[in-house]
Amino acid sequence: VVESWSFLDTVESNFRPLVVIELAKGTKEETIAWFTKRIVDKKANGGAQLLIKPLVMENGVENIYLVGASHLRLLLGAETVGLVKECSDNSMRTFTYSSRKTFKDFADDNHNFLTMAECQYIIKHELENLRAKNEKMIPGYPQAKLYPGKSIVRRLLTSGILVQIFPLHDREELKKLRHSWYGRVKVGYQPLDDIRCYFGETIALYFGFLEYFTFALIPMAVIGIPYYVFAWEDYDKYVMFATFNLLWSTVILEVWKRICAILTYRWGTLLMKRQFEEPRPGFHGVLGINPVTGREEPVYSSLKRQLRIYLVSLPFVCLCLYFSLYVMMIYFDLEQWALDYHKENESDFSSLMLYVPSIIYAVVIEIMNRVYRYAAEFLTSWENHRLESSYQNHLILKVLVFNFLNCFASLFYIAFVLFDMKLLRQSLATLLITSQILNQFAESLLPYWLQKRYNRRMKKRMCSQKTDRDLSIAEQVNMEKEMGTYLGTFDDYLELFLQFGYVSLFSCVYPLAAVFAVLNNITEIYSDALKMCRVYKRPFAEPTANIGVWQLAFETMSVISVVTNCILIGMSPQVDALFPDSKMDLVLTVALVEHLLLAIKFIMAFVIPDKPRDIQIKLAKLEFESLEALKQQ
Amino acid sequence: VVESWSFLDTVESNFRPLVVIELAKGTKEETIAWFTKRIVDKKANGGAQLLIKPLVMENGVENIYLVGASHLRLLLGAETVGLVKECSDNSMRTFTYSSRKTFKDFADDNHNFLTMAECQYIIKHELENLRAKNEKMIPGYPQAKLYPGKSIVRRLLTSGILVQIFPLHDREELKKLRHSWYGRVKVGYQPLDDIRCYFGETIALYFGFLEYFTFALIPMAVIGIPYYVFAWEDYDKYVMFATFNLLWSTVILEVWKRICAILTYRWGTLLMKRQFEEPRPGFHGVLGINPVTGREEPVYSSLKRQLRIYLVSLPFVCLCLYFSLYVMMIYFDLEQWALDYHKENESDFSSLMLYVPSIIYAVVIEIMNRVYRYAAEFLTSWENHRLESSYQNHLILKVLVFNFLNCFASLFYIAFVLFDMKLLRQSLATLLITSQILNQFAESLLPYWLQKRYNRRMKKRMCSQKTDRDLSIAEQVNMEKEMGTYLGTFDDYLELFLQFGYVSLFSCVYPLAAVFAVLNNITEIYSDALKMCRVYKRPFAEPTANIGVWQLAFETMSVISVVTNCILIGMSPQVDALFPDSKMDLVLTVALVEHLLLAIKFIMAFVIPDKPRDIQIKLAKLEFESLEALKQQ
Repeated sequence: VVESWSFLDTVESNFRPLVVIELAKGTKEETIAWFTKRIVDKKANGGAQLLIKPLVMENGVENIYLVGASHLRLLLGAETVGLVKECSDNSMRTFTYSSRKTFKDFADDNHNFLTMAECQYIIKHELENLRAKNEKMIPGYPQAKLYPGKSIVRRLLTSGILVQIFPLHDREELKKLRHSWYGRVKVGYQPLDDIRCYFGETIALYFGFLEYFTFALIPMAVIGIPYYVFAWEDYDKYVMFATFNLLWSTVILEVWKRICAILTYRWGTLLMKRQFEEPRPGFHGVLGINPVTGREEPVYSSLKRQLRIYLVSLPFVCLCLYFSLYVMMIYFDLEQWALDYHKENESDFSSLMLYVPSIIYAVVIEIMNRVYRYAAEFLTSWENHRLESSYQNHLILKVLVFNFLNCFASLFYIAFVLFDMKLLRQSLATLLITSQILNQFAESLLPYWLQKRYNRRMKKRMCSQKTDRDLSIAEQVNMEKEMGTYLGTFDDYLELFLQFGYVSLFSCVYPLAAVFAVLNNITEIYSDALKMCRVYKRPFAEPTANIGVWQLAFETMSVISVVTNCILIGMSPQVDALFPDSKMDLVLTVALVEHLLLAIKFIMAFVIPDKPRDIQIKLAKLEFESLEALKQQ
Repeated sequence: VVESWSFLDTVESNFRPLVVIELAKGTKEETIAWFTKRIVDKKANGGAQLLIKPLVMENGVENIYLVGASHLRLLLGAETVGLVKECSDNSMRTFTYSSRKTFKDFADDNHNFLTMAECQYIIKHELENLRAKNEKMIPGYPQAKLYPGKSIVRRLLTSGILVQIFPLHDREELKKLRHSWYGRVKVGYQPLDDIRCYFGETIALYFGFLEYFTFALIPMAVIGIPYYVFAWEDYDKYVMFATFNLLWSTVILEVWKRICAILTYRWGTLLMKRQFEEPRPGFHGVLGINPVTGREEPVYSSLKRQLRIYLVSLPFVCLCLYFSLYVMMIYFDLEQWALDYHKENESDFSSLMLYVPSIIYAVVIEIMNRVYRYAAEFLTSWENHRLESSYQNHLILKVLVFNFLNCFASLFYIAFVLFDMKLLRQSLATLLITSQILNQFAESLLPYWLQKRYNRRMKKRMCSQKTDRDLSIAEQVNMEKEMGTYLGTFDDYLELFLQFGYVSLFSCVYPLAAVFAVLNNITEIYSDALKMCRVYKRPFAEPTANIGVWQLAFETMSVISVVTNCILIGMSPQVDALFPDSKMDLVLTVALVEHLLLAIKFIMAFVIPDKPRDIQIKLAKLEFESLEALKQQ
């Protein structure tokens, strides 16, 4: 194959910059020459066969390169990464160059068959798969060791020669997307397919989940309002509300799986084969033989990693949890102090002061969450996981446990030790609202404002009155390379997860939580969209078929919330009054109801199919075809 | 491929009978001619390309045929069914004819490369995949309709023309197997690999599970004995015992998954690709288009099936459950009567009479279980499931729910309504022991004895003094075709499942249950082995990678047992005495402990990997290789 298209390839002259490579200033000439040669070299010679062009900046420094690829090269790359596209007969199939004619919208001159995000993903994949052959080190940098099969780009990144690789924005497309996404005031769905085309599946799926979750919360919010308004202290009526909430939360999580399957089938990622996972960039070890691939690569003893996890990380996490509980106790002292102060003074000011400890505590919680986040990242990276997925799982586990305790410990303490429902409601409201405000501010508005100020200064320095559209490519690159890097959907999901906790764990004492969550999420959609389009560099698209470990996290939360809500209802004086003779009967009834609810939850989760019937049939059809094809061989 | 080996094929003269086909007496000549032609016909002409030979019986009736195949044909068939065999480098790979030389023990003249069970499985697969071409009906039987793609053998079976298809025993091999399995008194493992070679993976896995489960019960039994002997009424010490049991039962179920992975990896079934599932033989409907295959086949509306399930099956099951509870109440009346009788008379006879109601009830339970089993089979088959797997799942669900209630309802009633621990212990012991005795008798000894009597008469009729080994093939076939048909591992697993219930649900009141279970299982291994080798026709091998839905059933049982044991311990007077002031504290503590245990269970199930590390690496290696191979294309 390679020989037959190398001619065509060189003929194509039309260079469209897709990805920017920024090298460190003062990178040696020989290194640049070697690296660019590897990028443009033929596949057969171990190159990536891409196109590269230096970008000459006004100050004459030449450390930025634009990478593109011929149309043909991209199509072959699409086959390599295993892209799944729609065929003319509306079925989804893995793209191969030889069967290209059967795909919808394919034409040899249609350069929009692959979206720009897909092209950039392919280029990233090809660059990361540029592997060392016989080089023992990066030319010019003897300390940057290489071994056969090592990804060159990863070594360049870890040794600091390569500063960053990022995909370029498409100003035209971005403007259209911005307009349809949040440009006009409208009621309706987000343009998920357009978001997916521009930002890739992982980000589109996050926005899809955010939107779905917001819609799913609306029934809770709608039912919650009258409860709040008319029946503030009628706990017995809350039983119905809480039961509805518990079953509803199971249903929405199950239905999300179905919607997720529909979306990712349409986007092709449901069918994409898992690629073999390479070691993550930060992984280090002594050279050895990988038992799976049989290739030489760094190996790191699993025992050593276990020791690091259990002897260092685990005690550290426990220490952090202890510290978080300690801070909580200080908060309760403050709370007591504020209460005493209010009793002594009884003024408007003092009654306002009642809220101050909660607000301070909410701020402290947010700060602790963020500081811990850095510590967890450091520790997990020190644990030296071989795979990015294993790194992510350990990080998420660490962060989830801490954030859960940090955010909810005080509420558990108030509810099940102090038995103070009034304080619980007040704390819940303060924590929820404060954390939402802080998050919105810290996540989007602050970076947006900083970015805006920076952009204004940049433009002034360039002494131009041009609008965005007229920017030259050099100016665009210059501006985008200074933008912040989007670090993935982790923080966004975490925020939703904690919000889900606030809404579901104590839903029977504070029905308004869902209302606040809905309001927050509506603005969250807009501020996150703004963040993606305006504040950050364009991220590389990442194909994904589901929201991964977050599904499990949300499901666990909904199981815990069954327990907490049952206990809360059991503790309420109104339910108490139903069992005047025997507290025993009350407790047993509550326990029975809790077990029944849990059983119903598990049965529901089991009975509701994870994929809608038509998707099941489509998948079965593809499987059948591939079996038939195997038989024909 | 087909052309190149058809010559070789006809040359081979050495016919080894593998599978017996019995047609109905008086089957029309044209039907036989058509059917045998299809069996021997070339693959290219839509035949199975097998060898067939009529067996002339002494009475001259010719309704039995022996089917065999050439060595080459079997190798090609092994490729079709996707057999996985061991390579020379000790890795397991899917067998293909072109790569045959790389497999361990392969030689063109080694006819033992495929085991006899594998050959028979291949022949069964080929026969079942004989499909109608343009035939509208079976020649000679206009009422037996065919349509293109319909399996001929299945139609012949459902219309009664084909009486049965079964694989022949290998007297030589069977004798060896019998000897190493149960022929001599020994302490040690069963020859699982030999069992797998002779009977296939499903049956070997059942015996593997039975053996593993027995070993796993030994610690419980060993710890249970001193509890029984020295601390009969010391419930507080039972807490430790019950906690151990609960965590142990989680561990053994998780570890079984790992052992199962090791076994099925070695046997190749862990790697076998799932074949596309054809409709089950009994499935009927109007001709339509299957949306998955696009082929013409009977379709049956999913709505109709749902209506049948929810409007007929579900009410019927509920009625049966009600009936079972009704019988239970009669049992309690009897129990009361026996007690009164004992009080009045106080004789040895009357104290013996105390056990009679439990024994009668145990017998009734067994009878009801068996009768219900037939009803469940009838109903599930009437529900008209398209796939065998879906049929099996609905049948297992129906049977499990009923058997669970039928066997354990009285124990639950005694424990949690009557609070009579003495009666609970007595009932548990009687039910467990009686059901074990009944099962052993009904399952193995009775059929064995019947079979033996029949064999003796048969031999007498043949007027021969020959031993088993000298039997001619005709005599062997004649004898085996009259043997009972082994209906699968369902009943055996069900028995183990109920036993697990007796052992774990109330383990803290009757620690001896595990001892009885171990004793029963040791004899069970022998009687089941006897049953397989002596009583039943040889069953076709069925490749399988795990014990399927039974894993889930056992896990569910172990979750339920956490709840029951916690309640039982909480109810005991000794634990009661620890909380003299507040019953409330007691209940809350019990609830807390229960939730903790459940949480630990789930975390353990999550943390223990389902496959051992070396199997994981081997699987990853294969996946990596196939990805690499795809890239090379």
